[in-house]
Amino acid sequence: MEVEAKFIYKEGVEEKLREIAEPVIEKFEHDTYFNHPCKDFEKTDEAVRIRRDVEGVAITYKGPKVDLETKSREEVKVKVDSFEDALDLLRKLGFRPVMEVRKFRKIYRLKGAIVCIDEVEGVGKFVEIEIESGSIRDKETIFDVAKLLGYSREESITRSYLEMILQKK
Amino acid sequence: MEVEAKFIYKEGVEEKLREIAEPVIEKFEHDTYFNHPCKDFEKTDEAVRIRRDVEGVAITYKGPKVDLETKSREEVKVKVDSFEDALDLLRKLGFRPVMEVRKFRKIYRLKGAIVCIDEVEGVGKFVEIEIESGSIRDKETIFDVAKLLGYSREESITRSYLEMILQKK
Repeated sequence: MEVEAKFIYKEGVEEKLREIAEPVIEKFEHDTYFNHPCKDFEKTDEAVRIRRDVEGVAITYKGPKVDLETKSREEVKVKVDSFEDALDLLRKLGFRPVMEVRKFRKIYRLKGAIVCIDEVEGVGKFVEIEIESGSIRDKETIFDVAKLLGYSREESITRSYLEMILQKK
Repeated sequence: MEVEAKFIYKEGVEEKLREIAEPVIEKFEHDTYFNHPCKDFEKTDEAVRIRRDVEGVAITYKGPKVDLETKSREEVKVKVDSFEDALDLLRKLGFRPVMEVRKFRKIYRLKGAIVCIDEVEGVGKFVEIEIESGSIRDKETIFDVAKLLGYSREESITRSYLEMILQKK
């Protein structure tokens, strides 16, 4: 389970993070999202993507969101050795690429959570706070961290970047 | 394209290989085959599997056979970092495991081809001669190598191990 909340970026959050959080990495992430050959992932609120970044290539499945306040969902991630082969495999299995999401992500660690500052091409700048391999009970930790950065839980956005981009189209 | 011919094992082939071929590796291969969520792979003559062996884990797609004399077919292979995650990913995408194929494989190199002596659980002992990333024109090389091992092209079997096991059931 990936337990995660997202907020619109506010002035000063990066400065605050540099003060109180531990920097982890800054990287470009290039995601290619696919539809399923026999169900509509937009309707089922699932997603499958290939992510490419400086750390390598991975295929990720994301299940439907399980919570109203956060964008928490089941996640299965498999690291693979080649983007081209992974793309070819998914195509052969009937999956079709539908959308690209490109962002520059700065990652920090704070109070047991991962905090990302995301500049997403065509969408805007956001803060994501996440606990990997967590349970939905961890969302209180996430809202505690959010509060430290000046966000109330009512400001949490449950839409994914993919949904934001699809909505703009 | 994987260009490949298969033959029933005949006495003396291993001795012959030890004489004239270069040994590469001996290993157990454990394959889990899946069906597709919205088409019948048995009918379309396609296959998707996860292979586990001493060299690691890979997801492989195999296209329909393209030749009457050999079991040549398109192959897309992606190395992955975890069997459990790959299994979980395929399940989440709607694929269901249908069959396990386990074999002990001895691999030799001979005249530009790969020769495998396969002892397949519940099926029997076979010789596979293959050229990876080849074109169907390479099948003459394969039949030349087969001849060196005492096989005529008429003895080539086009059924896969998966098909043999499914047929026995």
